This record gives sequence, C-alpha cells and structure tokens, in this order.
Amino acid sequence: MGPTIKLSSGHEMPQVGFGLWKVENEKAADVVYDAVKLGYRLFDGAADYGNEKECGEGIARAIKDGLVTREELFITSKLWPVFEDGDKVEPAIRRSLSDWGLDYFDLYLVHFPGALKYVDPSVRYPPGWHYDGKSEVVRSNTPMHVTWAAMESLVDKKLARSIGISNFQAQLIYDMLRYARIPPAALQIEHHPYLVQQELLNLCKAEGIAVTAYSSFGPASFLTFGFKHAQALKPLVEDDLIVEIANKHGKEPSQILLRWATQRGLAVIPKTSQHVFMTQNLGCTDFDLDQAEIEQISAKDPGRIRFNQPSNYLRPTSSGFSVN
Amino acid sequence: MGPTIKLSSGHEMPQVGFGLWKVENEKAADVVYDAVKLGYRLFDGAADYGNEKECGEGIARAIKDGLVTREELFITSKLWPVFEDGDKVEPAIRRSLSDWGLDYFDLYLVHFPGALKYVDPSVRYPPGWHYDGKSEVVRSNTPMHVTWAAMESLVDKKLARSIGISNFQAQLIYDMLRYARIPPAALQIEHHPYLVQQELLNLCKAEGIAVTAYSSFGPASFLTFGFKHAQALKPLVEDDLIVEIANKHGKEPSQILLRWATQRGLAVIPKTSQHVFMTQNLGCTDFDLDQAEIEQISAKDPGRIRFNQPSNYLRPTSSGFSVN
Repeated sequence: MGPTIKLSSGHEMPQVGFGLWKVENEKAADVVYDAVKLGYRLFDGAADYGNEKECGEGIARAIKDGLVTREELFITSKLWPVFEDGDKVEPAIRRSLSDWGLDYFDLYLVHFPGALKYVDPSVRYPPGWHYDGKSEVVRSNTPMHVTWAAMESLVDKKLARSIGISNFQAQLIYDMLRYARIPPAALQIEHHPYLVQQELLNLCKAEGIAVTAYSSFGPASFLTFGFKHAQALKPLVEDDLIVEIANKHGKEPSQILLRWATQRGLAVIPKTSQHVFMTQNLGCTDFDLDQAEIEQISAKDPGRIRFNQPSNYLRPTSSGFSVN
Repeated sequence: MGPTIKLSSGHEMPQVGFGLWKVENEKAADVVYDAVKLGYRLFDGAADYGNEKECGEGIARAIKDGLVTREELFITSKLWPVFEDGDKVEPAIRRSLSDWGLDYFDLYLVHFPGALKYVDPSVRYPPGWHYDGKSEVVRSNTPMHVTWAAMESLVDKKLARSIGISNFQAQLIYDMLRYARIPPAALQIEHHPYLVQQELLNLCKAEGIAVTAYSSFGPASFLTFGFKHAQALKPLVEDDLIVEIANKHGKEPSQILLRWATQRGLAVIPKTSQHVFMTQNLGCTDFDLDQAEIEQISAKDPGRIRFNQPSNYLRPTSSGFSVN
C-alpha cells in the first residue's frame, strides 16, 4: 500500500490512483484487472466515461481471484450535470453503482458545477454535453445548494463514504462551505505545470479539502479534441526542464510530473494501458525532488495578474479568502 | 450625455463614470461637484470607501446649484461582506443612502462574495477586512442565495433600481442565475490588459449582464499597498505599445486604456482629482481604436492555460458554459 491522504470524512484515500477517462471499453476490464495486480488500489471513474460496467468487471474478477478485497479498494465515480436536480442524484449514483457491481463508492464527486436539463438514461447514456446533438445544452434551474443536499443524503444512505467536487472554482467552494452539512472531502481539478492554481490549492489546504490532480501531463490528454491551445504547447514530457530533472534523478519525465504534484500534497490519477508505464506511474512517490526543482516546475505557469483580491490584503495565515 | 448601456433592469447606465475609491474625504465633496460640472453623471461609490457622506455633499450642492437633477445622475454603492447576512442587507443600504442623502441608488452591488461575521457600525464603520485588527476575518454561514434574496427585496422596496455584483467568478454567477428572481444587472470587475478575463466577459454578454471595469490602468492603483506583483510591472500608461497607440491617435495613454475597454462594450469608472484628467477620461469615447490595436492590447494577458472546460467542448454559440 502506497501513501494515502486522510480525508475530512475520516476515510483514507490512496495518493496515487488510476484514471479511467478514455480507457476503451473493450480493454477496460483487463486494464483494471492488471492495474490491481500491479498494486493500484484507487480507480477514478465517472458515469461520463462510459466504461463503468467494464471497469466493474475487472474489479469483480480481481476480487474473485483473491488479488484484493473490496475494502482495500477505493473507487470513485462522478455525477454528470444532467443529474444535478435534487431528485436525480440518487438514481444517478444507483445506476453507476449497478454498472460497477458495487454497494457503495468510496468517493462520489459532482463532476462539473452547473445543473443541466435532465436526460433520461433510456434516451442516451452517458448523456455527454449535448442534449440531442442539435440543440445547445439546456440549463436546469437547480442551484448547487440543492444538488449538494442530495449529495449529502448519499452519505446518510451509505451509497458514498465520502463526497466531493470536481472542476469547481474558489468562490463556489466558499459558498458551499457556508451551507454544507457535510463539507466536500475532495476536489478534483485539472492541474499541471501550465495550470498550477496555487490560490485554489491554498484554499483547499486551509479548509481540509484533499485535491486530486487530473491531466498531470498537461496538453497531452487534449490533443485528440483538436484544441489549438493544447496543440500549440510542447508536450510536458518533452519539455527541456522536465527532461533535465528526469535525467538528473534517473526517472521518466512522466514520473517527474507526478512527483511534482504528489510531493506538494496532491493525489494523482494517471492513466495508461501499458504495464511498464503503470508501474512507473505507481512508483512516482519513491524519490524526492529538491525544493528548487519543484519551484522551477511551478514557475512554468505565469500565474494570473490580479491585484484586488482579499488574499492580497490579509495576513498570509488568513484562510478562506483567496479568489483565484 | 455620453454613451449609455441598457441594463437588464430596463434602466440606462452611463458607460463612463467616476470612481470614488480612494477619493480623500476632505476633497471628496469638491471633486464630485467638479466632476458633475464637467459632465460626469455616474458616480461609483461604496460603503467601504469611507467617503459616502462627503460624496453626497458634493451631489447635493450640484443639485442645489442646478447643475443636474437626481434623475440625471446614476449613483452606485456597494454592500460590504460583513453585511451579507440576510437581515443586515437592508440596514446596510439604508446607512449608505443616509450618508449620501439619497432615497435610492441606481445600482447596488454585492462588493465581494463571501459573507463575513457582522460588525456593528457603532463598533467600526466602514468595517474593512479585519474584524478587530487582531483576529482574522471570520466567516458568516450565510450563503449567496440568502444574501441575494435580500438584495432582491431592495428592488421591491425601491431602495435600489438595479442590483448587481462585484468581484464574482463565473461559477458563482452561473449558480446565481439558477436561483435569482432578479438576475444581476451588472458585474464590476478588475479589468485591464494584464487581466482580460475574456471568458467571463463572454458569459456576461451571453447572459445580459453589463460589465464595469475597475482599475483600468492596471497596477497603478495598487502600488500603495506594496503589492510585489504590482510593483514588478511597468505602469500601463508607460507601456511601449499603449504609448505608441496613443501617439498615433493623438490621445493620452490613459484614454487608450479606457477606449480599449469601452469599445469592447464595458463601462469604466476612472478616478482622478485633476480637471484635465477628468476631462480626458470622460472624453475617452470620442475616437475609435482599430480592431488590430484592440487585439494587440488584449494580447498583453497571456491568458490561462486550461484545457478541460465545458466551453472548449461546446459550439462557439453556446452560452452559459465558460468556467474562467
């Protein structure tokens, strides 16, 4: 068992996990099974990834073969925006649990803030961003405090041991902290040296919210979408600084990127289907970067130039007032 | 009367106004009086600025001298975070109205999101960021939907003709739009070529929220606070590109910065106590920049490198889904 992070819910979350976004359906069961065999215990899934059934098959086989018990695993899933109306949250987690073949998730996250009009699973599942492929996405009038109350009820019903959020900004988190009966245990965000979001990380540290980084390798995950700002950047694993630090430590550039995040306290969920990379990624916490190296990597993000934010006026020890 | 912006409330807001932040108390009445005389109609104040009484004296004298009528003026004030509890909102606007000597504000804004523990005006007014100068700021458990309902009641009671927000991020605005009975008519934000926030501007355009830029001259306003990131930057009015464009148009660099904002549809609220600058600022809409110049200026902000946001996946015409 590798390093873990203690969540505010009292449960422990492995610091290095396996991300299931874009794991192909036909390979997913084997990939998950192999990952368990290689030592992975955290699997980060979502209804939106469209592969929860197959991932669940891999888990079931691993448990059946005695590689691991359910209690040793940490399985995450996520609520898609079209299920954020108060009465749609429980059916959504039950569908995901059923697909996985599980009784509970270790962590269930609101995938994106901003409720969208409900799409019945019989019409399309997973529903994705578009309602019908022709019309634009349609807003639902459910605000986050209503969705969050429904999320809290999932803990009461033991369908989720911990609940959290993904892709949330500081101000919406601060608002949640004012009404939450069960505060979010974790925040999952895009995080790489081009998008450090240090103020958001400071907020989470001060408020006891664990942070999981996704897309640790930066633009690499987004090239297939044709995003111009992803294509314009050099892949981080080929970046001169990252390669230089990797050579110095006798590690892979990918391991440097993961260690940069984990050494700063974040959890990571890299994805690969190749055994050699699975092993490398899982082993990303068995060496340490120098503080100077960490800072050099962080400096790749020029940051945002904002002057008038409360955190500028308050003492460095103040919590709760960054607005990144 | 210069150009105006039609608010979603139905009222018109002048596009160029006068900002009252840091206008010294002993000069404020004269400064406001002179500004009215020179043609300013919008005055942007706030309880936090600590000069509402004096500004109100300037207004009263201008009305008494027949320079202007109340109806021709557009007066803005702002609710400080320690007054964001539901039952503290109305007393707060009444205090500001009383200080100004007015019956209503044309626009009343939530100054910053994030309710803080109430500070009684008899203890300290304006209360500023610290509760007592020793302890840290203390959070109140009032979420924004409670504050906003109280703001809406100010419109019902005719204490404010329009209501809006200041220093809000996209996700909190989207959440408000899901519960607001009266949507925010305006958003006031820090906005200059180092902090363009184009996605936030896109959101406001799509949702019919007028945007007012403050700190149009960038770091200049924040040097006195000793902010290192403000001191590290060259003043925008001395910036090579801005000076070059100013020379080309026979205008002042400050006018270029204001025109860059106003030509893109934003309102501006520059502050100065010198007549020559007051006149220059007010006249910032009597010439036009080329599209190429606007884009060159906007390019001073390198933007933020975020890949996984809904607006990246949606068609350009989609509204309601940027998460800047």
